[in-house]
Amino acid sequence: MSHTTKDKAKLLARVRRIRGQVEAVERALEADIGCADVLMLVASVRGAVNGLTAELMEEHIRHHVVDPAREPDSDRARGAQELIDVVRTYLK
Amino acid sequence: MSHTTKDKAKLLARVRRIRGQVEAVERALEADIGCADVLMLVASVRGAVNGLTAELMEEHIRHHVVDPAREPDSDRARGAQELIDVVRTYLK
Amino acid sequence: MSHTTKDKAKLLARVRRIRGQVEAVERALEADIGCADVLMLVASVRGAVNGLTAELMEEHIRHHVVDPAREPDSDRARGAQELIDVVRTYLK
Amino acid sequence: MSHTTKDKAKLLARVRRIRGQVEAVERALEADIGCADVLMLVASVRGAVNGLTAELMEEHIRHHVVDPAREPDSDRARGAQELIDVVRTYLK
Repeated sequence: MSHTTKDKAKLLARVRRIRGQVEAVERALEADIGCADVLMLVASVRGAVNGLTAELMEEHIRHHVVDPAREPDSDRARGAQELIDVVRTYLK
Repeated sequence: MSHTTKDKAKLLARVRRIRGQVEAVERALEADIGCADVLMLVASVRGAVNGLTAELMEEHIRHHVVDPAREPDSDRARGAQELIDVVRTYLK
Repeated sequence: MSHTTKDKAKLLARVRRIRGQVEAVERALEADIGCADVLMLVASVRGAVNGLTAELMEEHIRHHVVDPAREPDSDRARGAQELIDVVRTYLK
Repeated sequence: MSHTTKDKAKLLARVRRIRGQVEAVERALEADIGCADVLMLVASVRGAVNGLTAELMEEHIRHHVVDPAREPDSDRARGAQELIDVVRTYLK
C-alpha cells in the first residue's frame, strides 16, 4: 500500500526544513557564534526530528497496520487511534 | 575565549555528516522506500544529533565554564569532569 | 482483549524494579552522596522507564492492534512487526 | 561543598512525587486498566524524571562547578548561566 502524494509532499517539506536547520547550525559554527547559541539551534533540530518521527510512525500505522478511520473492527480502530495518541505524546 | 581550530573542524565534520544523513532521508522518501526503513534512517539522525549535542556541551563546559585539565581548584576540576561524564551518559 | 497473566507479571516486575531504583535515588539524596552519583542513578531510572515504555507499546500493538504472530493478512503482520522493531530502536 | 537544606528538601519532594507516580503505574497494571492509559501514566513519569535530571544538573553546576550568582569572573558566570539554560531547554 503506497502513501498518498499529499502525505509524501508534507513529509518531504518537513525533511527539507530539517536540512535547512542543519545548514543553519553549520553556518553558525563557521561564523564562530557562541556555543550556547549553537546548542539552541541544535535543540530545534532535535525537536524537528522528533516531530518527523511521530509523523512517520503515524503514517506507518495508518497505511501499513490499521487506519482508525477505515477499520471496520471497532476494537482495532480504537487500539490504533490510542497508539497514534501515545506516539504523539512521547515524541512531541 | 575562542575554540581551537581543531575542535571546530571536528564539530563541522559532525554537522556535515548529519546533513548527509538528512539528505539520505530525503532521497529515501522521494524513492518511496518503506516507512520502516525511513524511520530507521531518522533514528540514526537522532542519534547523531544527540552525539553533536554532547560534544557541544562538553566544548562549552571546557571553554566557557571550567576546563578540568587546566583548572587549579581541584574541587571545581572534579565537578566539571563529573558534569562532562553525566552529559555523555545522558546523550549517548 | 485482555493481556495474558504472564505478560502482566513481567510488566509488574519491571515497574517494581523501577520503584526500587527510585527509592535508591531517594536514599542517595538523604545520605548526601555526590550529585554526580545521584545523576547516574537517575539515568538508570530513565533507561528503565524507556524499556517499560517499549514493552507496553509492544503489548498494546500485539493485543489491541495487530499481533504479527496471529494476523492472517501478511502485509499487516509485516507492518506491525516493523512497527515493533522501530519502537524498540527508538526506546532502547 | 554541600547543598543547602532547602535545595535538598525540594529535590526529595520531587523524588517522592516520582515514586508516587510509579506506584500509580503499578496499581493501574494490577487493576487491568487499558494499556494506553498506563502508557500515559508512564509518559508523566518520564517527564518528571527529566525534570529531576535538569534540577540535579543545575544544582551540580551551581554547587560543584560555577555558581553564576557568586562567580567574580564574568565570562565564567555567563558561561555557567548559558549552560543551565541549555540543560533546561534539553530536558524540559
